[in-house]
Amino acid sequence: MFSFKDLSAAFSQRFNHSQFPLTPATLYEPCNYFLTIGGKRIRPILCLMGNELFNEIHEDAYHLAAAVELFHNFTLIHDDIMDAAALRRGMETIHTKYNQSTAILSGDVMMIQSYEELNKINGNYLQKILRIFNKTAKEVCEGQQYDMDFENQNQVTLEAYIEMITLKTSVLLAASLEMGAIIGGASEGNCKHLYEFGKNLGIAFQIQDDYLDAFGDPTKFGKEVGGDIRQNKKTFLLLHTLDVAPEEQKAQLHALMQGQASDKVQKVLAIYKACGVDAWANTLKEQYWQKAMEHLEAIAVVSTRKKPLKELADFLIQRDV
Amino acid sequence: MFSFKDLSAAFSQRFNHSQFPLTPATLYEPCNYFLTIGGKRIRPILCLMGNELFNEIHEDAYHLAAAVELFHNFTLIHDDIMDAAALRRGMETIHTKYNQSTAILSGDVMMIQSYEELNKINGNYLQKILRIFNKTAKEVCEGQQYDMDFENQNQVTLEAYIEMITLKTSVLLAASLEMGAIIGGASEGNCKHLYEFGKNLGIAFQIQDDYLDAFGDPTKFGKEVGGDIRQNKKTFLLLHTLDVAPEEQKAQLHALMQGQASDKVQKVLAIYKACGVDAWANTLKEQYWQKAMEHLEAIAVVSTRKKPLKELADFLIQRDV
Repeated sequence: MFSFKDLSAAFSQRFNHSQFPLTPATLYEPCNYFLTIGGKRIRPILCLMGNELFNEIHEDAYHLAAAVELFHNFTLIHDDIMDAAALRRGMETIHTKYNQSTAILSGDVMMIQSYEELNKINGNYLQKILRIFNKTAKEVCEGQQYDMDFENQNQVTLEAYIEMITLKTSVLLAASLEMGAIIGGASEGNCKHLYEFGKNLGIAFQIQDDYLDAFGDPTKFGKEVGGDIRQNKKTFLLLHTLDVAPEEQKAQLHALMQGQASDKVQKVLAIYKACGVDAWANTLKEQYWQKAMEHLEAIAVVSTRKKPLKELADFLIQRDV
Repeated sequence: MFSFKDLSAAFSQRFNHSQFPLTPATLYEPCNYFLTIGGKRIRPILCLMGNELFNEIHEDAYHLAAAVELFHNFTLIHDDIMDAAALRRGMETIHTKYNQSTAILSGDVMMIQSYEELNKINGNYLQKILRIFNKTAKEVCEGQQYDMDFENQNQVTLEAYIEMITLKTSVLLAASLEMGAIIGGASEGNCKHLYEFGKNLGIAFQIQDDYLDAFGDPTKFGKEVGGDIRQNKKTFLLLHTLDVAPEEQKAQLHALMQGQASDKVQKVLAIYKACGVDAWANTLKEQYWQKAMEHLEAIAVVSTRKKPLKELADFLIQRDV
């Protein structure tokens, strides 16, 4: 069994060379540039781990991993346009560095390239994997659409928010594991448990992300703390507070959201705490974590094989925050 | 053997219902709207004809036809954003009717849907078809990129222009025929001839389109005559004229292109005619038409089976202009 670090190195060795032709450079150079921005490459590693949970890693798992990473990067390129984001991980986004048309088109061609990688997979399970991949790809688009829709809605239920982040983020993590497991020869039942493990882990991770954006230690959290609050982003914390806060605090919250007072973050955090939203978020995260662990437990392989996945989950979810 | 009209009716009957789920309506309603704008559905019919040239039409050819039409519409949605086109066939484009983010995302999901249609095709030739489809899809993106690049270049060779329109338009026509032929069980050699027939026909069609935009009969030509000239579009006609015109006329042409004089179209046309570009364009079109016909001729099936394709080619290329 390989650790996350081992798999990450093995994947990078194969993936970190140009995925694209040389010409037209105006199309493919931006694609190569964007891939150098990097990221933790969690999704491709999940493909490899899904495979290795059941069997030695097959060459096809690397093609799948590349396809998933290319697809993920395509979504980032287009999301950056829609969100008008100038930077990603401190680097210029494609529409900033080049122009918008280039960003649209290089995203498109990156998606096509991901299907090209998928088409290198053994024909025996290609259709099954394509079915999951296509379903997931559509769900990711739906999640992005819901996310944009929510920004224009006054009221969003917690349920709808969980559905949105599930589609936008969790299903691709879940599907990466499941498709890897198919290559590993896993049974239908084991595949489903692995999918549910990934999905619930993804939701727990997103709850944590929302939590850390508000309550995180600024010296440890990668991003500026309070960014979501300043932008009035509909997060787990805000939605729950609007649900449970007494009328007076709700009114204060709405008033704070109208402006950009210098003490906005501080005052909103005070309301969050008064409503006990920090403890609530931890409990909610714990519930999804538990569900994830139950599904991991239910997979019918010897528990030593599950160690890398358990370690990755522990790494992603800092259970003491 | 079915005529274009028969095949068109058969395809429409299957295709003209919603291709997409109901929710989120903000994502899928624009997709359905765009498909109602219609078009001649030439590409899906080419898929069916490619199949029928060799064998009875198989259900898979309809899935392929739907995939190709969805892919084509995805490219139109994104091209409309890049070209800032407000209307298509007299109807509002998606980014005009809704907004740009919706246009990006509904284009994305339409491309994914086209792969979902492909995945309904028999596994025996799925990989072969996917390989052609992916290659062609990338080429179409490359063609669009070259087209945008050319707008910012002072000099474009005729050769580069032909390569651009081949990628942007002809390869998808050619691949539609070839992929249909694969479903029909055609041999490698026959597939290649059919591909070349489609590719050369597409180039001839584009030369004709450029010609008609300048010299067409306004009562017969669907679009406003002279649009390309007003926009200084680099067409076959302009590129050739810049190639062959004496220095004096070249200078006049450049001067005319700097402005939007009321007699710009008339004066540019006079230069085109003085340079004999109208006769040249007809000869060039005829050359590609001849190549197309030679490849059609070379396909090893009884000539009666080729009748619908020959009729379609005659319909597309009005050889008397």
